Amino acid sequence: MIKAAVLGATGYAGIELVRILSNHPEVSIEFLGSQSFDGKKISEVYHNFEHVLDVECKALDLDAVSKCDVAFTALPHGASKTVIPQLIEKGLKVIDLSGDFRYDDIKVYEKWYKEEHSSPELLKESVYGLCELHREEIKKARLIGNPGCYTTCSILGAAPLLAKGLAKPDNIIVDAKSGVTGAGRGLALGYHFCECTENTKAYKIATHRHTSEIEQELSKLAGEEIIISFTPHLIPQKRGIFATIYINLKEKHTTEEIVELYKEYYKDEFFVRVKNAGELPETKHTAGSNFVDIGVVVDERLNRAVVVSTLDNIVKGAAGQAVQNMNLLFGLDEKTGLKNAGFYL
Amino acid sequence: MIKAAVLGATGYAGIELVRILSNHPEVSIEFLGSQSFDGKKISEVYHNFEHVLDVECKALDLDAVSKCDVAFTALPHGASKTVIPQLIEKGLKVIDLSGDFRYDDIKVYEKWYKEEHSSPELLKESVYGLCELHREEIKKARLIGNPGCYTTCSILGAAPLLAKGLAKPDNIIVDAKSGVTGAGRGLALGYHFCECTENTKAYKIATHRHTSEIEQELSKLAGEEIIISFTPHLIPQKRGIFATIYINLKEKHTTEEIVELYKEYYKDEFFVRVKNAGELPETKHTAGSNFVDIGVVVDERLNRAVVVSTLDNIVKGAAGQAVQNMNLLFGLDEKTGLKNAGFYL
Amino acid sequence: MIKAAVLGATGYAGIELVRILSNHPEVSIEFLGSQSFDGKKISEVYHNFEHVLDVECKALDLDAVSKCDVAFTALPHGASKTVIPQLIEKGLKVIDLSGDFRYDDIKVYEKWYKEEHSSPELLKESVYGLCELHREEIKKARLIGNPGCYTTCSILGAAPLLAKGLAKPDNIIVDAKSGVTGAGRGLALGYHFCECTENTKAYKIATHRHTSEIEQELSKLAGEEIIISFTPHLIPQKRGIFATIYINLKEKHTTEEIVELYKEYYKDEFFVRVKNAGELPETKHTAGSNFVDIGVVVDERLNRAVVVSTLDNIVKGAAGQAVQNMNLLFGLDEKTGLKNAGFYL
Amino acid sequence: MIKAAVLGATGYAGIELVRILSNHPEVSIEFLGSQSFDGKKISEVYHNFEHVLDVECKALDLDAVSKCDVAFTALPHGASKTVIPQLIEKGLKVIDLSGDFRYDDIKVYEKWYKEEHSSPELLKESVYGLCELHREEIKKARLIGNPGCYTTCSILGAAPLLAKGLAKPDNIIVDAKSGVTGAGRGLALGYHFCECTENTKAYKIATHRHTSEIEQELSKLAGEEIIISFTPHLIPQKRGIFATIYINLKEKHTTEEIVELYKEYYKDEFFVRVKNAGELPETKHTAGSNFVDIGVVVDERLNRAVVVSTLDNIVKGAAGQAVQNMNLLFGLDEKTGLKNAGFYL
Repeated sequence: MIKAAVLGATGYAGIELVRILSNHPEVSIEFLGSQSFDGKKISEVYHNFEHVLDVECKALDLDAVSKCDVAFTALPHGASKTVIPQLIEKGLKVIDLSGDFRYDDIKVYEKWYKEEHSSPELLKESVYGLCELHREEIKKARLIGNPGCYTTCSILGAAPLLAKGLAKPDNIIVDAKSGVTGAGRGLALGYHFCECTENTKAYKIATHRHTSEIEQELSKLAGEEIIISFTPHLIPQKRGIFATIYINLKEKHTTEEIVELYKEYYKDEFFVRVKNAGELPETKHTAGSNFVDIGVVVDERLNRAVVVSTLDNIVKGAAGQAVQNMNLLFGLDEKTGLKNAGFYL
Repeated sequence: MIKAAVLGATGYAGIELVRILSNHPEVSIEFLGSQSFDGKKISEVYHNFEHVLDVECKALDLDAVSKCDVAFTALPHGASKTVIPQLIEKGLKVIDLSGDFRYDDIKVYEKWYKEEHSSPELLKESVYGLCELHREEIKKARLIGNPGCYTTCSILGAAPLLAKGLAKPDNIIVDAKSGVTGAGRGLALGYHFCECTENTKAYKIATHRHTSEIEQELSKLAGEEIIISFTPHLIPQKRGIFATIYINLKEKHTTEEIVELYKEYYKDEFFVRVKNAGELPETKHTAGSNFVDIGVVVDERLNRAVVVSTLDNIVKGAAGQAVQNMNLLFGLDEKTGLKNAGFYL
Repeated sequence: MIKAAVLGATGYAGIELVRILSNHPEVSIEFLGSQSFDGKKISEVYHNFEHVLDVECKALDLDAVSKCDVAFTALPHGASKTVIPQLIEKGLKVIDLSGDFRYDDIKVYEKWYKEEHSSPELLKESVYGLCELHREEIKKARLIGNPGCYTTCSILGAAPLLAKGLAKPDNIIVDAKSGVTGAGRGLALGYHFCECTENTKAYKIATHRHTSEIEQELSKLAGEEIIISFTPHLIPQKRGIFATIYINLKEKHTTEEIVELYKEYYKDEFFVRVKNAGELPETKHTAGSNFVDIGVVVDERLNRAVVVSTLDNIVKGAAGQAVQNMNLLFGLDEKTGLKNAGFYL
Repeated sequence: MIKAAVLGATGYAGIELVRILSNHPEVSIEFLGSQSFDGKKISEVYHNFEHVLDVECKALDLDAVSKCDVAFTALPHGASKTVIPQLIEKGLKVIDLSGDFRYDDIKVYEKWYKEEHSSPELLKESVYGLCELHREEIKKARLIGNPGCYTTCSILGAAPLLAKGLAKPDNIIVDAKSGVTGAGRGLALGYHFCECTENTKAYKIATHRHTSEIEQELSKLAGEEIIISFTPHLIPQKRGIFATIYINLKEKHTTEEIVELYKEYYKDEFFVRVKNAGELPETKHTAGSNFVDIGVVVDERLNRAVVVSTLDNIVKGAAGQAVQNMNLLFGLDEKTGLKNAGFYL
């Protein structure tokens, strides 16, 4: 059994990790870290865990954590800074859900996060945990920068066209919609029920940090620098990212041809489901599961591919992908504990 | 492995059964019956099952079904009439999700359903599948009448006070609220999104069929005839029953005393979680799980217990309880495949 | 034109007052009080008012307010304490949306609010602003205690049976469901979108302060002391109260007879709509309007009336009724500015 | 008083028309047409109208309608075909909410609607009722083709950049999100509450008919042919369109410059509210009102304007704009009956 610690267990990404890990056949949850609920059982904070999991939450205790094999860090920015290097030193594998270890180039990080990076050496060593693209490096890593939710959805949606050289590099646009769990459990009027329900809005247009992650990965796939428009929106549902991606094609192609290309590109990927031509994904097809669903339509009037990509932001966009990374790190079948179909209802 | 058939697999109760059974370690799904989607894969009807379950739906084929060990029947009233006797004859265990086999007294059935019962003999033999109250009979049964959603929630909420003789028998009132999945997948304007959202209403006041089920079980527990007020309401959420139950007490008691009584009564029941005094359940604590959560407050001004009881209508109120019944029928640990914590988010 | 001040204009009750008053043909909004948004235009706080109303919010300025004819006080408990006596002294009519001036008996107030009343003299003078029951006293008042949302819905639902002597006085139960605007605009995790949506819960069972208001009014109507069970619930919608009221009848009656009694009782009331026998109200029929819709079913097995009563908690349950009170205070047609049909969608 | 008929009064656009007209000071509603509810009062179909409007719905009766001054036709495609010419002949002004009279070029209509137009002569005469762009022609028209909901939102969002020659004509992309009322009142599983809530999806990518309307108007504004990508999405709320529009700029501009351009362009338009730089609109700011709110961000890395435009699809996107057109047709102040601020809550 893999002994696991979740630091930041009572946030929304944290508790989804706990939910997934509590159903994972090869994991025992050994430590749940929470500053705010130190001394309380997780089942007293999230009552759905009563009779299922009674682990007590604790403020950070490095000695206790260091007896684990793996730590998932879902900590507020800053808190993770000092903790992660110590965990690595003690020999744990670390899967970090923050943005700190997602970058190849420290300058990109510092430009978008507007601060100096605290562990440049570790950043260099860390691996970007988008499993479908970096599986082999992940298997050998000590520290994983687990990708963002918008990021995973957008990159996997666009990857085949860029990797195969069919995309024109300019005018790539990602228009993305997110459920409210993406904002986390912190209080703010904008996330109040009466403000959110029956409401849609855009935010951080042209400045959202996930833009830089998407550009990094798409540039690598394309072999040239890709700069995109990325527009995040908040929509009135809990779970789900829906990314609509516009990519001009170099040559004329039909929808069927591009669908075929996607099916071929992802043919060995369990967690990526490419829709047949004429079918389109919906957020509820992925809710509660680790799947990414992708559909493509080519607008032949414009020779432009419209790719729609969707996933559950706190599963494949956070906790599920973290567990998929853990499976890879420990030599398990990547799908272990993640094979369920989602809720639908 | 238990070979299972689900008849009526594409309705909401049916698909939830498929979801639960697809995660059950001792079950293989052998047959999915659906008139409307004959020839389609279940993953083409419910896309969340793509890459997970590819069984083809079929119109009823008794030969194929008869190779199974158990059949779950979630059929429209009438359809089950002819099918169930044949399945029993072929040696299958049958767990029926309709109202047909829930009654001790055929006259009660005929009064509330306003028609003759088609299999009086089978009705006599069938066992009411409320596991917490009839576990031993269920283990030996061939045919289970799986209880209704309102019913399970209401009976388990009221049972300790009636069984222990603390309740005055008159003036018992159950005010129950249900999510919209309870109405099933059939089309009607009242279940249209624009009509349901931002709306609450009561319906079938004093005439809902579940009233008779609740009365039957409470009367047995109390050892005298119990007649109740039962008021169902539709609330704007997918999953969840929330029953608020008013019961006058024969003697003076504190909240703490009644909570203690409930904890004692349910001390061996994994799926019933009694809240501490001062705590109350919420529907989202049970969503996606097989738990029933119960809280009690005694209004000392009135010497009246207010019991609040909640569960997920398509899990403990339908598909989950059906699987719990199957576990009992086949000598498995009752919790097999049902130990998860629910979604919360 | 009546010059109106709204103190506490940026809370949910306050802004609904502003919305209604901005459509009222006989009112000019002269002062909007808000501690938190001092110096900001109301249209900068609630952007729906851009191009419609540009009044600047101000921290309390008694001189400015005293130029008005009427003040609506939707202030946090405590703040109103010192303000209201000063406004009365300056000759304004005051309509207070807090609980402070709703009681005939100061002891009832002090028992349920657990503190001394700050203005016993004013309390004595104040009139309970439930227009349908106290219209004549309201017309002559200086200070109105505007009723609570649960209260208005429950009292008007039960009134005919008590006033006409048909109700048994014991075993009256009000099971009430409220939308989330009732909780106001203050931040708390329980009102976060991700916590509220897909969730129903009860709270303050047997201890909610509105209980005492309901009991006061029902006792007066019945001519004897009435003690009730009152259970508030939070449901996942913005607007709406739905009260289900259980009342045992002294004599046998049919549904039709009781409906007839209600129609007769409310025959001159524009804002009360009694449903025909066989029809039931829904919260969305009243959303955005000042109507109360009431339906009745008699459960003949139990000789018990089940009354369902619904209104929009921030209109007839707060701001709309406040305007109805203002209309009465100033000799206008009670319906002025309140005749619209609600949104439905 | 203007005597008005609404044909198709019980659909969602129809009933919103009835709601707005019932508050309009210069209109009397004389005829409500409904095939499905012939003989029923409108208040029996939409109970929010009880005590407010008791007009009886009738199957089409041309004699009755012809006594009116204006007819709003919100009829199923096909039904309007024969009716509208007769109404025009009888001297009524007609405001048609279908797509039939929105086109300058009959070939565009026939291409996107895939059928022959039934009244080519009337099409030639009809005026496209986007008031902000065609006010003077509207005033003199007999027949108005009232624009679509996506259309109004998209065109007004893009207009200034095209009219002023700042936009590059290619690579214009409109990514639009719509509430579920846009789908109307017809039954379909996809609009069932349990399917819609917690779900977002795209549909009719590259083939939605509103594309052609948008292209027609933007081409006229730009003085050259504009072909766009238009992607409609369904989001889980009742009301609201949110369009995110991507337009490459010919020259370098700052956000402030483009905001200034928009403010200038719309400076005389009451119903268009341009947000200050740094502010963005939300659907709930417009819900229940006739406003269009527009915000702009220039992504200076890409020299691309991202325009976000929002309105209430059944008000400014249908019924409200229809009334605005009626006001123009009858020489009233365009704002009459439409000056309210929206619901917010």
